[in-house]
Amino acid sequence: MVKRKKSFSLHIEKPTFIVNRERAIKNIARMADKAQKSGVLFRPHFKTHKSTRIGEWFRNHGVECITVSSVDMAIYFSKNGWRDITVAFPVNILEIEKINKIAQKITLNLLVESKETVLFLKENLKSRANVWIKIDVGYQRAGISWDNFNAFVPISRELSKAAHLSFQGILTYSGHSYNAKSKKEIIEIYIDTLFKMKEVQKRLKQENIQEVKLSVGDTPVCSIIDDFSDVDEIRPGNFVFYDIMQLDIGSCTEEDIAVSVACPVVAKHEERNEIVVYGGAVHLSKDSIVQKDGARIFGYIAFPDKNCWGPLIKNSYVSYLSQEHGIVKTDRKTFDRIKVGDILMVLPVHSCLTADLMKRYITLDGEIIEAAA
Amino acid sequence: MVKRKKSFSLHIEKPTFIVNRERAIKNIARMADKAQKSGVLFRPHFKTHKSTRIGEWFRNHGVECITVSSVDMAIYFSKNGWRDITVAFPVNILEIEKINKIAQKITLNLLVESKETVLFLKENLKSRANVWIKIDVGYQRAGISWDNFNAFVPISRELSKAAHLSFQGILTYSGHSYNAKSKKEIIEIYIDTLFKMKEVQKRLKQENIQEVKLSVGDTPVCSIIDDFSDVDEIRPGNFVFYDIMQLDIGSCTEEDIAVSVACPVVAKHEERNEIVVYGGAVHLSKDSIVQKDGARIFGYIAFPDKNCWGPLIKNSYVSYLSQEHGIVKTDRKTFDRIKVGDILMVLPVHSCLTADLMKRYITLDGEIIEAAA
Repeated sequence: MVKRKKSFSLHIEKPTFIVNRERAIKNIARMADKAQKSGVLFRPHFKTHKSTRIGEWFRNHGVECITVSSVDMAIYFSKNGWRDITVAFPVNILEIEKINKIAQKITLNLLVESKETVLFLKENLKSRANVWIKIDVGYQRAGISWDNFNAFVPISRELSKAAHLSFQGILTYSGHSYNAKSKKEIIEIYIDTLFKMKEVQKRLKQENIQEVKLSVGDTPVCSIIDDFSDVDEIRPGNFVFYDIMQLDIGSCTEEDIAVSVACPVVAKHEERNEIVVYGGAVHLSKDSIVQKDGARIFGYIAFPDKNCWGPLIKNSYVSYLSQEHGIVKTDRKTFDRIKVGDILMVLPVHSCLTADLMKRYITLDGEIIEAAA
Repeated sequence: MVKRKKSFSLHIEKPTFIVNRERAIKNIARMADKAQKSGVLFRPHFKTHKSTRIGEWFRNHGVECITVSSVDMAIYFSKNGWRDITVAFPVNILEIEKINKIAQKITLNLLVESKETVLFLKENLKSRANVWIKIDVGYQRAGISWDNFNAFVPISRELSKAAHLSFQGILTYSGHSYNAKSKKEIIEIYIDTLFKMKEVQKRLKQENIQEVKLSVGDTPVCSIIDDFSDVDEIRPGNFVFYDIMQLDIGSCTEEDIAVSVACPVVAKHEERNEIVVYGGAVHLSKDSIVQKDGARIFGYIAFPDKNCWGPLIKNSYVSYLSQEHGIVKTDRKTFDRIKVGDILMVLPVHSCLTADLMKRYITLDGEIIEAAA
């Protein structure tokens, strides 16, 4: 057996995704509390963890309605007793058979952004489903632009004519908040989002379409804003784990980050103060944050300790990833502290993608948490 | 049922990794032939496909020795009858128990790049293993720099004293060839690699260390160079599938690319000629190629046809990926040809990472190929 730092009780021999359960539960509790105080529905996005076990942590905080990003994920969670699920992805009409099956069993919420899809659902959906119109307030990924009245008004009229399509309201995802660099910018994005969503709501009211609910939900906005009383539901996902992208944006502190990947040190390169770890793109994902000088960062590092991991190590980061290798750049002092056979904890840039790659998580007391394949 | 283009016989309803078997087998045959003509051992890297079925296609071309990038992958392939495996990754001493188990069963080739690891293996390795010293000829990822005689000479001396560690030679990976932008640059990298490797060989000979084999193996070099008679083995991996990164480098033609991801079209945005497909970072990976203007490309697109997919569609590429969404930028003419519910084929930037994410491949005649988890 190889000796490792005594403070770390887990047996690690290859890249291992560690969840700090206390921190994750604290993140859940904080967000659930915020939603409750605002009197809005907390419908967390489960794409980040994709785990029925972590779903239970949410249930313990009163969560009954959830968001997922695919029909398969909705099926997965419906088998675990979740009965009210939003698939926050434009309806993929090629999956209508699966959609029909699950719509029979649970309260299914679908997203539409074209009249064609609404007409398709009118004809092909066999059960009742709730429908939301996806609105784009500036992210420019999916959704109808908030000022494109000519597009969303006919869709909502079409929806109000279909007996089994129950029009709920308008839903947006302000993903452009990921480009924010300060709390102030995030607040501005929320104010702007709210203004645009309310404009759509007003416009629909003029068309005699009443009771249009508002759904919002990106982690930066949901982390920074405290009062959500202007909307009906929030759908953040990433906040359960957070990551260094969120730290960089300013939506969490270092102490909120609940996951890291334990990586064995396999080589050292003294001439450039670089450490080679077993932990590459197939473990961490190639998502990155860009520094002012254009250099990309693929993770921050910390030493393992009895509380999972210690503070982020200064002047140290993952500078390069290939399929299985990670290169950690550091300073001489830290370099000298690290030996081949040690474990370094890599805090991921984007925890959703890292969790998707790792699929199996472990808590510090050894509980193994399996996520959807 | 939804109508789709009749020329495409597969039933696709979600992102699906398609392998054009004929192209993959042609790629294998071409490389095997090249190795044979050069009189060198062809030891392909199986990290790209991680599939025992695709391994059989290699066996049919006389391949008996393979390369993998982890001990787990070596175990996986050893269970499928592979008896001579190189783990092309610095020995991770924390995995010594697994290494000991597999070293009993097969001819295991290990990579070392520090005296500490050699001393560890001398003490802890229970069976005989072949050992290669990893040399860095310019990629600066792992390995001892080719001119650092003071580092590799003592290691090779140490190896020659250990009865159960059979020193085979020096191994390098010229991964900096991925930054090449022309065939000429790739040829220069190979000439440079060869010069440096032979310098190391000479230096070891002066130390009375004879019969030092040379192992090289990145896809760009192995695709462009025809004569490998100066080395003992080649270890390319990506070439079995190729991808648009290789196309961009110039190591393959469009007709050599053997994989793509069939993605359903879920939305269209006329105001910016953008198509939203079901196919995101969890399917394609966030690896990208950078255009001259700094914009990132996450995939090229083609229409499905009876030969898997047609030519790359001009002025069209995946411009953005989030977890499940892909954004395809295109021109008006192409935009108008595409409908919600169609299938677009996305040719990945880096097929190794896409294959790792998808794990299950399908050929055009419906054969399902499972890869290692």
